[in-house]
Amino acid sequence: MKFGGTSVGDMDRLTRAARRVRLQVDEGRKVIAIVSAMAGETNRLIECVQSCGTMFDAREYDAVVANGENVTAGLLAITLQQMNVPARSWQGWQVPVRTSAAHGAARIVDIGVDNVLARFAEGMKVAVVAGFQGVTNDNRIATLGRGGSDLTAVAFAARFGSRLCSIHTDVDGVYTADPRIVPKARKLDRISYEEMLEMASLGAKVLQSRSVELAMQYKVPVRVLSSFSDSSGTLVCDEDPNMELRPISGIAHSRDEAKVTIVSVADRPGIAATVFGALADSSVNVDMIVQNISEKGRTDITFSCPVEDVETARQALANIHGRGLINYQGLLHDRDVCKISVVGIGMRSQSGVAAQMFSALAQEGINIQVISTSEIKISVLVGRRYLELAVQALHDKFQLDRDNRALGEVDRAQCVQAQEEI
Amino acid sequence: MKFGGTSVGDMDRLTRAARRVRLQVDEGRKVIAIVSAMAGETNRLIECVQSCGTMFDAREYDAVVANGENVTAGLLAITLQQMNVPARSWQGWQVPVRTSAAHGAARIVDIGVDNVLARFAEGMKVAVVAGFQGVTNDNRIATLGRGGSDLTAVAFAARFGSRLCSIHTDVDGVYTADPRIVPKARKLDRISYEEMLEMASLGAKVLQSRSVELAMQYKVPVRVLSSFSDSSGTLVCDEDPNMELRPISGIAHSRDEAKVTIVSVADRPGIAATVFGALADSSVNVDMIVQNISEKGRTDITFSCPVEDVETARQALANIHGRGLINYQGLLHDRDVCKISVVGIGMRSQSGVAAQMFSALAQEGINIQVISTSEIKISVLVGRRYLELAVQALHDKFQLDRDNRALGEVDRAQCVQAQEEI
Repeated sequence: MKFGGTSVGDMDRLTRAARRVRLQVDEGRKVIAIVSAMAGETNRLIECVQSCGTMFDAREYDAVVANGENVTAGLLAITLQQMNVPARSWQGWQVPVRTSAAHGAARIVDIGVDNVLARFAEGMKVAVVAGFQGVTNDNRIATLGRGGSDLTAVAFAARFGSRLCSIHTDVDGVYTADPRIVPKARKLDRISYEEMLEMASLGAKVLQSRSVELAMQYKVPVRVLSSFSDSSGTLVCDEDPNMELRPISGIAHSRDEAKVTIVSVADRPGIAATVFGALADSSVNVDMIVQNISEKGRTDITFSCPVEDVETARQALANIHGRGLINYQGLLHDRDVCKISVVGIGMRSQSGVAAQMFSALAQEGINIQVISTSEIKISVLVGRRYLELAVQALHDKFQLDRDNRALGEVDRAQCVQAQEEI
Repeated sequence: MKFGGTSVGDMDRLTRAARRVRLQVDEGRKVIAIVSAMAGETNRLIECVQSCGTMFDAREYDAVVANGENVTAGLLAITLQQMNVPARSWQGWQVPVRTSAAHGAARIVDIGVDNVLARFAEGMKVAVVAGFQGVTNDNRIATLGRGGSDLTAVAFAARFGSRLCSIHTDVDGVYTADPRIVPKARKLDRISYEEMLEMASLGAKVLQSRSVELAMQYKVPVRVLSSFSDSSGTLVCDEDPNMELRPISGIAHSRDEAKVTIVSVADRPGIAATVFGALADSSVNVDMIVQNISEKGRTDITFSCPVEDVETARQALANIHGRGLINYQGLLHDRDVCKISVVGIGMRSQSGVAAQMFSALAQEGINIQVISTSEIKISVLVGRRYLELAVQALHDKFQLDRDNRALGEVDRAQCVQAQEEI
């Protein structure tokens, strides 16, 4: 059970989190609780480090910043003990959580299970683990980078073979679209790992991508729910046939998009490699790529990237143009765009999703500038001003406000299983 | 070099401490810097723990509270690195500092030197160690109790064979008397371990007693100085003949004293054992003991103790009286007293110190209620109202405002040695 910073933001919330843990213990389960630092603590420690100056040893940064989680872990253990729940805190080096040496963005290499299992065998019911940290081969403390507590939780669940990993956060679960844009947006009961990955990469800030990838790899069921309501949240899990009944699960959007067009380059082998090689060397984060129809041996190449990369991209292209590696007639860019995507494993087996999507946008007079697809996602670039209209139009078109169990055959056995997970 | 909480109380002070460390590095020395938590941090963490409730696992208390020192250690290491001084932070478990399992008041059992020495050999110039903590055999974090950072510093100096242990704090050094009572009180350049122990136990809050005992045992020279001035402070070290030239080194006082008198008990063997056994069983901290002249086979017994122990003492005595183990005519107590002590190794070889002390008090009309002596200390109980007068009168009587090097033969070689220490 992972509790984020706002979920343990003060002693009241910490106590509430402890009660949730106790509920599980009362039902006979052993619990590993992963905690973040209390909201604001990590930033406070980072500011302390930054007030020392601009350059610092990443190993020392980690040694300072990891203390936030240490304090929360101890306090939660104490709170549980107050409730007569046998609990103890574990810092990363005590488990041990072994990490790579990439301080500040370390990767979990392994988790030693023996110590924790031994204590469980001796009567400990809850292991409260300080998230976001581990220890390197050099016996130094390493932090995992932002979102590292989610990753810690999934890694522990995978390593210990937990039946469930629950992420207690400040959102209710995963919605069919951003509820601030679509009031009728509905909370999804279940979503597959692949769909969650697409939603996460598109900015749905519910679960960190690395965590979802790890969960998918080790088949860890992950429930995302709110610390502040009794909603059962959303279960992120393996695909099941019921999920494929709905053509799409949700709509994601991103405002941080820009479009760059290289006007009229020679249409021959090697050009694309030269262009995108140069962009990659400059760390431009290219997303969608479109090459228009060739005419008289020349073509336009259009791609999308984050707004902050536009200048870097222009310079990289001007550079290879200046060195004669390519020869274009012009460079255009447009920051006034946004990306809208429909996501769903159902589109693999159901035809017409793209057609319905383009039709819905056309009905609103929204021009599609770029299209890009993957097996379970269709993305378009449209004018920025159409973002909210586009999302709402698509939400209506695919009737996402309606519970999908009403749309198709209901597998009762799978519904029962879903209820058990809750 | 140990830096207390106020000496690293904010980033400015932390930087100042770093400069002092760098000075030593510039002179070719390797430094182990022991740090406390920033002023107020430990209390904040303790309050967090206490807000969880009244009872808690001492091991979890330690896991939370030790984080204060961890943060300071990291920040000081970063600050030194900013100054191009190769430094790294060490938490207790990383050194390792091995302690007993008495969480909250643990004893240092051993300090592993290999890791730190290996890093010194590789180029590290400063090891910044988080004071106040260590690790138990159970791989749990243990704190050493209040004043534990002083103890850590002396223990490291002993174990690493350091040439000096300096305690950087918010007082200037050890004075001949409390400067707030005696404006003419003078800072001592040197004081012996035994004298320091007597001064410390009498409330001179400069150095924690356990630290002085450890320094004495391993012959670690300890310099106490202020973080906020350039004074060279006071060197606490082995006795030397120069120290014996002065009859006394200083005057200590304690306001937290009460006097209890058991009136008229049988004067026979076993009574004192019964009385003080009962007091010890009740954890009454008995200090001075006086038994008056016996008359007709009965005697009075008077002792002193802290004011807060008076009620417990009375109850313990009433209890053994009620059970018939002793038979007294009455119990008297007086909270309106204070204890004045003169301390000095010189009194071992110089006669008349007691006479001079009692004469000085008599001249001021101060009645002496109880007298107690040890090899290097003479203590008296007098009425509370006479405290300041008594201290000043004694300070004048023994001419403590004058530098003792003017009083007797000066050993130039030892003066030079004292200067080198600075």
